[in-house]
Amino acid sequence: MKLFHDTISVDLSTGPDIADITGDLREVVQRSTITQGMISLCCIGSTGSITTIEYEPGVVEDLKEAVNRLAPPGAHYRHEMAWHDGNGHSHVQAALLGPSISLSLVDGRLSLGTWQQVVVINHDNKPRRRKVAVTIVGT
Amino acid sequence: MKLFHDTISVDLSTGPDIADITGDLREVVQRSTITQGMISLCCIGSTGSITTIEYEPGVVEDLKEAVNRLAPPGAHYRHEMAWHDGNGHSHVQAALLGPSISLSLVDGRLSLGTWQQVVVINHDNKPRRRKVAVTIVGT
Amino acid sequence: MKLFHDTISVDLSTGPDIADITGDLREVVQRSTITQGMISLCCIGSTGSITTIEYEPGVVEDLKEAVNRLAPPGAHYRHEMAWHDGNGHSHVQAALLGPSISLSLVDGRLSLGTWQQVVVINHDNKPRRRKVAVTIVGT
Repeated sequence: MKLFHDTISVDLSTGPDIADITGDLREVVQRSTITQGMISLCCIGSTGSITTIEYEPGVVEDLKEAVNRLAPPGAHYRHEMAWHDGNGHSHVQAALLGPSISLSLVDGRLSLGTWQQVVVINHDNKPRRRKVAVTIVGT
Repeated sequence: MKLFHDTISVDLSTGPDIADITGDLREVVQRSTITQGMISLCCIGSTGSITTIEYEPGVVEDLKEAVNRLAPPGAHYRHEMAWHDGNGHSHVQAALLGPSISLSLVDGRLSLGTWQQVVVINHDNKPRRRKVAVTIVGT
Repeated sequence: MKLFHDTISVDLSTGPDIADITGDLREVVQRSTITQGMISLCCIGSTGSITTIEYEPGVVEDLKEAVNRLAPPGAHYRHEMAWHDGNGHSHVQAALLGPSISLSLVDGRLSLGTWQQVVVINHDNKPRRRKVAVTIVGT
């Protein structure tokens, strides 16, 4: 049984912004030389999240709107009263979406559908380089 | 340390529809002969999700309604403008719920409460056979 | 490769109440003597959830409010019609947030940002001792 760590970094615009990291993840898997295993992905930082979508421009915009409905920018947040950094909504959005996902790696392939991509979301109110910790356990 | 893969398949109606797969998961665990470990479950496809609930008819209906409030069917989705397949809401719902969960396997038992079941949700606007990739690592 | 299980218990007030368990998790990691690996955390019970936030009083209150917008206490829930225990909203909130997260453990450190803490949420309509199953696989 082997263990492999790597980090995927991606530059994102002011949130909500959404990037497809499936290609980067496939490269990490290849470098690991693991073909059977379990993969964890965790977005580092409290204003980022990770999920899967069909990464096409329409869904990307629809998801941004839905995320802004969950915690609208410009609404009243108590985080602002102490910090005045304008990202109260970012923290709430990221917490609701969640920081991590788990995937299976079977015969060298990710357990994803044909139209399913792994995405990182930046919820912060400024551009951010988001980092995703990837760990693979397997053979 | 052993590694075990399997897939759970379940036929679901037009979304949101919710199936309890806890029994199937227990069978997978038994076949794996692993009694101590970590389990990942990932719903394959971008219009499905996975979570846990108390699987009783009331909660099932309450969760369907809540999911439809997050991204109402029939609202305006940009995904529709390109694809016209009527499932813009399905993509958004599935992304917000998330594709995967992780469980512990301790002394042959899943880390679930007595009234907590693992469920797969089909968010698509047509019936779908949903597949869940299960990977177990342990001894 | 080693495997380590433990349980973190935390007493929470009537939901939504939110506790920071990052310190407890670091103690579990230390006891495990594993420094490189993958960690799964799963909240046991159908009215609890787990995610990450910047644990400061403002965000904690903002997240409570957002969680109560997702499934408001006092609204109509079918769960109530059968059970009359007043926690229909608790079940829906917990299912939407999700029961589990995955983290990487790299050089003895959790894959978290400086301002990112692991939190357990009690959504139940009464105080609860929430238990989180922690499993670590690694070296």
